[in-house]
Amino acid sequence: MNQIKMIVAGPRGKMGQEALRMIEKEDNFKLVGCIDRKYDGSKVKDVAGLPALDAVIYTDAEQCLSEIDADVLVDLTTPEFGYKHTKLALENGVRPVVGTTGFTEEQMEELTNLSETKKLGTVIAPNFAVGAVLMMQFSKWAAKHFQDVEIIEKHHDQKLDAPSGTAVKTAELIKEERESHHQGHTDEKETLEGARGADVDGMKIHSVRLPGLVAHQEVIFGGLGQTLTIKHDSHHRESFMSGVKLAATEVMKIDVLVYGLEHLLD
Amino acid sequence: MNQIKMIVAGPRGKMGQEALRMIEKEDNFKLVGCIDRKYDGSKVKDVAGLPALDAVIYTDAEQCLSEIDADVLVDLTTPEFGYKHTKLALENGVRPVVGTTGFTEEQMEELTNLSETKKLGTVIAPNFAVGAVLMMQFSKWAAKHFQDVEIIEKHHDQKLDAPSGTAVKTAELIKEERESHHQGHTDEKETLEGARGADVDGMKIHSVRLPGLVAHQEVIFGGLGQTLTIKHDSHHRESFMSGVKLAATEVMKIDVLVYGLEHLLD
Amino acid sequence: MNQIKMIVAGPRGKMGQEALRMIEKEDNFKLVGCIDRKYDGSKVKDVAGLPALDAVIYTDAEQCLSEIDADVLVDLTTPEFGYKHTKLALENGVRPVVGTTGFTEEQMEELTNLSETKKLGTVIAPNFAVGAVLMMQFSKWAAKHFQDVEIIEKHHDQKLDAPSGTAVKTAELIKEERESHHQGHTDEKETLEGARGADVDGMKIHSVRLPGLVAHQEVIFGGLGQTLTIKHDSHHRESFMSGVKLAATEVMKIDVLVYGLEHLLD
Amino acid sequence: MNQIKMIVAGPRGKMGQEALRMIEKEDNFKLVGCIDRKYDGSKVKDVAGLPALDAVIYTDAEQCLSEIDADVLVDLTTPEFGYKHTKLALENGVRPVVGTTGFTEEQMEELTNLSETKKLGTVIAPNFAVGAVLMMQFSKWAAKHFQDVEIIEKHHDQKLDAPSGTAVKTAELIKEERESHHQGHTDEKETLEGARGADVDGMKIHSVRLPGLVAHQEVIFGGLGQTLTIKHDSHHRESFMSGVKLAATEVMKIDVLVYGLEHLLD
Repeated sequence: MNQIKMIVAGPRGKMGQEALRMIEKEDNFKLVGCIDRKYDGSKVKDVAGLPALDAVIYTDAEQCLSEIDADVLVDLTTPEFGYKHTKLALENGVRPVVGTTGFTEEQMEELTNLSETKKLGTVIAPNFAVGAVLMMQFSKWAAKHFQDVEIIEKHHDQKLDAPSGTAVKTAELIKEERESHHQGHTDEKETLEGARGADVDGMKIHSVRLPGLVAHQEVIFGGLGQTLTIKHDSHHRESFMSGVKLAATEVMKIDVLVYGLEHLLD
Repeated sequence: MNQIKMIVAGPRGKMGQEALRMIEKEDNFKLVGCIDRKYDGSKVKDVAGLPALDAVIYTDAEQCLSEIDADVLVDLTTPEFGYKHTKLALENGVRPVVGTTGFTEEQMEELTNLSETKKLGTVIAPNFAVGAVLMMQFSKWAAKHFQDVEIIEKHHDQKLDAPSGTAVKTAELIKEERESHHQGHTDEKETLEGARGADVDGMKIHSVRLPGLVAHQEVIFGGLGQTLTIKHDSHHRESFMSGVKLAATEVMKIDVLVYGLEHLLD
Repeated sequence: MNQIKMIVAGPRGKMGQEALRMIEKEDNFKLVGCIDRKYDGSKVKDVAGLPALDAVIYTDAEQCLSEIDADVLVDLTTPEFGYKHTKLALENGVRPVVGTTGFTEEQMEELTNLSETKKLGTVIAPNFAVGAVLMMQFSKWAAKHFQDVEIIEKHHDQKLDAPSGTAVKTAELIKEERESHHQGHTDEKETLEGARGADVDGMKIHSVRLPGLVAHQEVIFGGLGQTLTIKHDSHHRESFMSGVKLAATEVMKIDVLVYGLEHLLD
Repeated sequence: MNQIKMIVAGPRGKMGQEALRMIEKEDNFKLVGCIDRKYDGSKVKDVAGLPALDAVIYTDAEQCLSEIDADVLVDLTTPEFGYKHTKLALENGVRPVVGTTGFTEEQMEELTNLSETKKLGTVIAPNFAVGAVLMMQFSKWAAKHFQDVEIIEKHHDQKLDAPSGTAVKTAELIKEERESHHQGHTDEKETLEGARGADVDGMKIHSVRLPGLVAHQEVIFGGLGQTLTIKHDSHHRESFMSGVKLAATEVMKIDVLVYGLEHLLD
């Protein structure tokens, strides 16, 4: 089997470093270049903290994508750069796998069209943790058969926002299947405000924040005499690499833009 | 909407009693008769312990199914009677929903053909707990993306067999997707025999038995930096009624025999 | 060993019925009488739904406690009757085990003095579930070593109050050991109100309500790199009987009034 | 308050490095020296990977302990060196906190006597994770009231032994309180060998090994209608530092040798 030749944009970020390590370990992947704001012309292995790989770093994304013979661009930068890189990649015959979110509708439409015109697959994924994406898909499915559900998400106590983005996203997916209704007893009373959590369309979300936690979520469905729970626990960002690996493999087989890892999971 | 007219076979069993209570509560269902080994000619409400329903009890299944105008037979008896009842139901234009297992291959083939000839839906389900069936389906799906998995099932300490039938069934479903391999470190050593549980194709199953437990199972998938857990907890046999309800509703829309609730769950 | 001769007040209530069944099963206990608002002079076995025991029912508590030779009164009635019964028991040389709460300070003082004067043990317990009481004691102990803690309690969706009394009681016990402080990031923000739960002295309590749940609570302590969780799951009120049994046994060995099962648990 | 002046033996090991980071962060502690097999005379900050601390490294333990004015020696080496260092520390007026196990009975007796003679506290702890030690103590306590218990321990799949040392230790502690008996149904049958786990005096231990797990254990006690679960999750070795911190603080207040962190936890 031919190796997939990969360019990584953002190699020094936390996710970028994990991506380099993953590519280094995978026999099917080969790093052929990097796009970074610094270190133009250096080799990856010459930058402190990066793995011993020979691929060259470019600060000029266009030059990188046009000069190097690559199959896939893995972009782990910001929405602004991500958009620019994705466009350049498609124009240069390279399939983009993008981990940034926040593209505008116009940008999404443009990239979708470009992907189609060029007949080159593109994967844009707000979440690369395969386990988290499956949890959301299972939850959506379970909501067809269980009308009552609550979400408990638990994170370390340095997290600023509550609830987490994943919890809100999960609730939104469930909402697509669940008939809107108030849960709990109709005369239910909070003797301490907030006890019953945040409300999304009658569902409840609870956010736990403690030192010693990393990133956890459980979705609990209740029915007569039974509960069904779907739980994801993540303790390291290497958990995202299974998704990057999957996306980089699958993007080679498609010729359109796909938004969300879930479309590659069945 | 028209009510679905139902006959229940085995109304005095634990599951049968739950079925009567469920039918009593559901506006869409109406009990029109029962098949039992005793109490011929009595009304349900005249049998101690059964709900206040007017439907008549028959000891002769054929007579019941031919005399009464019914849509669905819910059979909660034994394989032997279940087979006989299913056949009689189809011959009399009644759609069977059967909770017994253990039919032979010949019987299954015969019932499949009969269902098709009569163009009458039939549902045969080894497990009516919707949550348990979803747990198994999610597990099968997750196995496409996580190669390592262990099952922990927990039951009250009066249970005789270990592991539970559901645990073994779950492992078999996972096996259809998972590449066969040994899990754990290759040099792993049990310093106390049995610590690593039962082995199914390299997967491990652990059976916990304690007073205070009812019926619980969790399927844990592990990948780099993350785990995905699917858990079902059942504390009352009324949990099976969601499945009976679903099957009785769906059997009206199909004209073939379906084996396993999972085929009605999407 | 001599059997402990017991009178039960409130034998037809849910807890009372469980108490009768427990006494029936225990070789060390013997039911010698009941106090009830009805059925004066009947035997227990003659009241529908009660076990086949020969003890006689009295509607007059004083008569019952003075006529019958008993060791222990198990009172599972209301605060009003509980107070009256406890006093009568002590005056008649019977040791009270009381499952009602809500006595006033004056009543408690009076009963404490009476118990001491008569040199007869008395146990008054707001919670008879040994597992729940241990959970609270462990939580109090753990709070000496872990400063950050959140409580998640889960109940069936017919429960009216949130949070549960046990959760609030647990938080109060933890408060005795924990230095008061705000938990979570100082700049933490709820993007959906209520997500972070109810606040007790900086600790958080979350209340989940779903069909299929019974009565569950977990107390999660977080520290650097680790969490410690103490969890109690109750699925049947027979769980309270371990505590009644313990109290009835221990009350024979003491000669003062004890408030709370925890004082009998070590 | 005076700072506690500390020497660390084994500063480059995984635990040693965590200890240096902990001391650096704690205002009450001050690093005054290190004992290592290499880097004699270097400062800590000059060794790659270690924090920016000025303390000097000695290869000669005796010289270090006699020359430097220290309060506490934190020894995170091997049994062999640990024994030698502990003795030298006591002879030089320094209180030892030792994280190694495996001392012989003779060595323990000698160190106990020496500690007493010198009136200097010593703490020897096989486990410094406060949460794990509390889990074991709670389990021992709970065993007085719940006769049936099973242990599930979960670790990453690179672990060689099953069950874990902590699980076996927990079972031994429970055994001190629990009446020996077979658990589960007397006619229980394993249809797949190993399903019921490893047996310790009738109790069962189950070992789960999966990628994505770190170090987890739950102890489940079962009684009529209820279960009580005590669970410890550790995802980073910094979890041990709470115990080192506690031991280094408490060792200053005692004048005997204490074996096991549990004796400092109440």
